[in-house]
Amino acid sequence: MTLESKILQKIKPTPLEEEALAASVARLLAILRSRIKEKGLHAEPVVVGSVAKGTHLKGKDLDLFVLFPPETPREALEEQGLALGAFLERREKMFAEHPYTHGYFEGLEVEIVPCYRITDPAQKMSAVDRTPFHARFVIERLTAAQKDEVRLLKAFCKGTGTYGAEARIQGFSGYLCELLVLRYGSFPSVLEAADTWRPGAILEIGATATRPFPEPLVVVDPIDGGRNVASALSGGTLAAFREAARAYRKKASERFFWPRPRKPLTATAAATTLRRRGTSLLGISLRRPELTEDVLYPQVHKAHRALVDLFDRHGFTVQASRSEALEGEVLFLFEFEVALLPAVERHLGPPAGVPNAEDFLAKWRGNRLAATPPFLEGDRWAVLVRRVLTTPEKLAKAKVATLSLGKNLDESARRGVRVAAGRQALRAAWMGEVTELLEPRFPWAR
Amino acid sequence: MTLESKILQKIKPTPLEEEALAASVARLLAILRSRIKEKGLHAEPVVVGSVAKGTHLKGKDLDLFVLFPPETPREALEEQGLALGAFLERREKMFAEHPYTHGYFEGLEVEIVPCYRITDPAQKMSAVDRTPFHARFVIERLTAAQKDEVRLLKAFCKGTGTYGAEARIQGFSGYLCELLVLRYGSFPSVLEAADTWRPGAILEIGATATRPFPEPLVVVDPIDGGRNVASALSGGTLAAFREAARAYRKKASERFFWPRPRKPLTATAAATTLRRRGTSLLGISLRRPELTEDVLYPQVHKAHRALVDLFDRHGFTVQASRSEALEGEVLFLFEFEVALLPAVERHLGPPAGVPNAEDFLAKWRGNRLAATPPFLEGDRWAVLVRRVLTTPEKLAKAKVATLSLGKNLDESARRGVRVAAGRQALRAAWMGEVTELLEPRFPWAR
Repeated sequence: MTLESKILQKIKPTPLEEEALAASVARLLAILRSRIKEKGLHAEPVVVGSVAKGTHLKGKDLDLFVLFPPETPREALEEQGLALGAFLERREKMFAEHPYTHGYFEGLEVEIVPCYRITDPAQKMSAVDRTPFHARFVIERLTAAQKDEVRLLKAFCKGTGTYGAEARIQGFSGYLCELLVLRYGSFPSVLEAADTWRPGAILEIGATATRPFPEPLVVVDPIDGGRNVASALSGGTLAAFREAARAYRKKASERFFWPRPRKPLTATAAATTLRRRGTSLLGISLRRPELTEDVLYPQVHKAHRALVDLFDRHGFTVQASRSEALEGEVLFLFEFEVALLPAVERHLGPPAGVPNAEDFLAKWRGNRLAATPPFLEGDRWAVLVRRVLTTPEKLAKAKVATLSLGKNLDESARRGVRVAAGRQALRAAWMGEVTELLEPRFPWAR
Repeated sequence: MTLESKILQKIKPTPLEEEALAASVARLLAILRSRIKEKGLHAEPVVVGSVAKGTHLKGKDLDLFVLFPPETPREALEEQGLALGAFLERREKMFAEHPYTHGYFEGLEVEIVPCYRITDPAQKMSAVDRTPFHARFVIERLTAAQKDEVRLLKAFCKGTGTYGAEARIQGFSGYLCELLVLRYGSFPSVLEAADTWRPGAILEIGATATRPFPEPLVVVDPIDGGRNVASALSGGTLAAFREAARAYRKKASERFFWPRPRKPLTATAAATTLRRRGTSLLGISLRRPELTEDVLYPQVHKAHRALVDLFDRHGFTVQASRSEALEGEVLFLFEFEVALLPAVERHLGPPAGVPNAEDFLAKWRGNRLAATPPFLEGDRWAVLVRRVLTTPEKLAKAKVATLSLGKNLDESARRGVRVAAGRQALRAAWMGEVTELLEPRFPWAR
């Protein structure tokens, strides 16, 4: 029995599970149809997502779309769409293109999403409206055997931390996995092909690209030549996937599907590592805003870049950094080459004789912050300026609240920023991230 | 009496001095003519340089050219040129376009330089051959009053450290000063004009530029539109001159002509400054090769750049640096932000998936110098590598001899490099340079 058959046994629903799922889905559709009838609507519920396409893994997720006639006003669609989902347990209102309902039914985690019924994919439509076309494209082409190949690829992406188009992962969506298997035929062939993707590679499956794409991997949507199915995939996640594929082909193992949980370093071990290296650690924590991850993570990434840039501009060389949304807080971690900079820093000004050189001189001549009068370094003005913020900790405390971190994180920063340096940064809640910062390991190589 | 008249009184030869000079020059020319006649040559001695043009300062310098017929073979010219100068006291053979004689006559410091008599400046000729044409151009145009303006400008350049086209100064030649006075009319007008020179400014005095020039200031040679009289002038020296002009126009004083000698910092004062700033000092000294300054200084500058680059590449931020040829040694001084870097450094490799990524991985996987396995930072490979050379001192000791410092300095480096850090670098012989490094001051602002 091959490794992949063994893995399939673990990830593929059994016939019994499929039967139970089908029965629940039938009951759910019946309820929806009767609610639609009661309300006199012309809507139609359809199962979409991996269950519709037969590429689902074991689990209890179900995506349902309710197709409304194209002439339905937007507000009516949203209101009625939400009303239709009102029978779900523990339901929450969520937001994508339209608001939708997330909740539970017979133990299944269900999303009921209203959208427009569109018959011609050439019509202008939202990403949500396009989904039924994606489902149909895949269902019509994927063989039964290939469905298992998709399952393997999805499980591989999950295990290697590259599954999901959401902002936290910036990885491979289910639809992208399906298209890749359609394109290359099987899970191993996709892994093999990954090695050949060059930056800017364009994969076309049935449709031709109708515009250039800026992303590192382009998989043209068969339903819309102007859309890249891999548009959410970041260069970093793509690189991790390719490395995972390379490593798996060299030495396949279950580790790629079920990574070992990583044991965090103890605070003592981390302190020893930092001391041996001669580097220093800083943690910056903001209160976590109550937002969906897809809204939060772009801000986390923006804030991360802003912080690295802040340290950089002030002469603190960041050796490594991480950012992550944890329970109740957003954490930014930095490892610095140097924890203390001199009490002066050189400001290099404009070349002598250009018009704004006079501004530089006017600013620094006799300035009490200047440690020297302006002097020439080659043909450029320079001045030694007193540095007050001589440690990353002081710098962060003084400046984080002045940065542009994203709307909600800015608000968090105004409420207070926790800055912890050295041993203070070795808090229990942070040690998982500290461990990844100091000793990065791929999930399959732990 | 204006400041400038007072200065002229000090720099311009008195009538008595002029008379004595003229008498010596007459005797010198008589001797040369009789030697030429004795040897049956068709050569002709002429006074060139500032004495010929009447723009000389007090002093005892005299430049004489001996013009040979154009058909004279090069070796004959060189041999006979040297033979003609054999009557000078303490004479030395020097090298420019042709070898020439440097020596003394009645207390004058004399140079006797053989060159070709060329009647048409359009003929191909060397810089030396061109000199008589320069002299004639200036003599024919400069008024008596303007000669004094040239004297002021030259003395101003001397006092501000910007006089001389030689490699050590990279400044204003006498001929350039003369052309500037011809162009702008007077010493004050030249200072005023300096403020208007923009990078790449082209000044044409009688001739039009026949090609583009890369230098920061272009003064087209009236004798040759393809030559920039200011070609030796560096951006740094030009900037210093412009700043001097600006400062002088704001507040004129004798300081610009006779700068106060600077009192070096004591070792204790320098150590205090370094401690307060939190910066660290390093001196690197090489044996001074026995070369003329014009051959030595380009190597000094090259070596300086190579050293700054070395430190930079290894993560040591140079806050300030200087290089100078001292008695018996060439000294390079560096002030560093940080004196100790961590025991590891991050090497950023190629993006994942490009062809040479495999080389990076092959190099660093399992490498005993690597402190971690390669990991992904975004879409690029990175690895933490053990750093052995954790101080600029260790780095310099290990690497200076491997750099390309210039032919003769490479030889010096092979014989031994003195590297001195911290208090060790506060040697008495170095304190003048240490002072300029730590507290740079313009000559007029001491």
